[in-house]
Amino acid sequence: MKFALYYWPNIQGRGEFVRLALEDAGADYVDVARLPEGSGGGEAALLRWLDAPAAGHPSFAPPFLKAGRSLIGQTANILLFLGPRLGLAPGDEAARLWTHQLQLTIMDLVAEIHDLHHPIAGSLYYEDQREEARRRSAHLRRERLPKFLGWFERVLAENRRGRQRCLVGSAVTYADLSLFQIMAGLRYALPRTLRRLEGDLPLCVDLHERIAVRPNLATYLASPRRIPFNNEGIFRHYPELDG
Amino acid sequence: MKFALYYWPNIQGRGEFVRLALEDAGADYVDVARLPEGSGGGEAALLRWLDAPAAGHPSFAPPFLKAGRSLIGQTANILLFLGPRLGLAPGDEAARLWTHQLQLTIMDLVAEIHDLHHPIAGSLYYEDQREEARRRSAHLRRERLPKFLGWFERVLAENRRGRQRCLVGSAVTYADLSLFQIMAGLRYALPRTLRRLEGDLPLCVDLHERIAVRPNLATYLASPRRIPFNNEGIFRHYPELDG
Repeated sequence: MKFALYYWPNIQGRGEFVRLALEDAGADYVDVARLPEGSGGGEAALLRWLDAPAAGHPSFAPPFLKAGRSLIGQTANILLFLGPRLGLAPGDEAARLWTHQLQLTIMDLVAEIHDLHHPIAGSLYYEDQREEARRRSAHLRRERLPKFLGWFERVLAENRRGRQRCLVGSAVTYADLSLFQIMAGLRYALPRTLRRLEGDLPLCVDLHERIAVRPNLATYLASPRRIPFNNEGIFRHYPELDG
Repeated sequence: MKFALYYWPNIQGRGEFVRLALEDAGADYVDVARLPEGSGGGEAALLRWLDAPAAGHPSFAPPFLKAGRSLIGQTANILLFLGPRLGLAPGDEAARLWTHQLQLTIMDLVAEIHDLHHPIAGSLYYEDQREEARRRSAHLRRERLPKFLGWFERVLAENRRGRQRCLVGSAVTYADLSLFQIMAGLRYALPRTLRRLEGDLPLCVDLHERIAVRPNLATYLASPRRIPFNNEGIFRHYPELDG
């Protein structure tokens, strides 16, 4: 099956969680907005589908995925759909719901990381909410990140199935790829904080390293398809927020 | 099947989206933390499962649901599981994913409404982040609420199936019950803002009225099982945030 991903062309953002799954599985997909405008790409293509009254199932925001006649939005929902089709989700319902629960918790963390630099409004520049961001960052560093990452560390510790630890059962799922992305993004955005926290997160650190060398992913991460982290996306490096 | 819901006993909060589905369907369930401590209830019962190393699938936060041997967390994930079992989700996969996508978008809105009164940290009192809340509230009122509610109005407008409009297909789903709760909560929290917005939201207003009189729900809403809105939950009424 051929997939078309619609997401902002210049950032990793939420779309990256979908890109990682598609790339790891070697799926046949096109990242529509990264095509040239002359080939039907660019942000114009993204906005056309977002606003199209005839889209049937319009998305509130990118990313969204076209698969055959289906148009599917919400990052975690896209992965719920793709997981079994890409061999990145377990077979039985209970384990699939658990994988999805992990992904939804990752998306909650992503929202908190976004609001770190935008505590007042997404429509304002960071520079216009810098003081509030600084105040929020102390709570994120001291309370929220240790709580979230500690919870994923616990999930890894309690799952002893398989030769190599992953979040669910004995095989890698899209949730593992997403936790890899969280670790990579936080190391970019908050390097000092992560160095402090990682001593208590040996299993998360180990997972990050193992996912990064999966053949398809290693190829992707070294390719120009992997957009570098930058201060337009979710994971932004503002040293004053890193404590 | 008998269900056990675990959620904070004194607020509607995120648990209410699950309660509404269980009540509307007349499901056999117990709201564990609302039982007396002597009968195994209270917050102690909630925290016991949250911290239990043997829980298997621990939740990051309430609500979570026990169903047979399954323990399921994340509000939208619980509804994904319950929907078909309670007759509150469509039968085919594409429509189920669409219903879930709507629910995930509702949960995004819920998080923004929560952060209205807690823009800096959930661990601080409102009074300690009142100035930031006031600043954030202007953006929520003028940008985010019109955008979110306008999107749901559009989804209702574009779905012309069935005698009475609902979000998906021709029958009520858990997403309709959740949109009812959003309207009810916002009317409590931001009455002036809602009066201003509702002129552009005739279908959302109509949906709220129709859901409220569904027999099982009307009984529930008039019963002591429906916890009144209060300033401990997600929808809080602080007049200074209502513009």
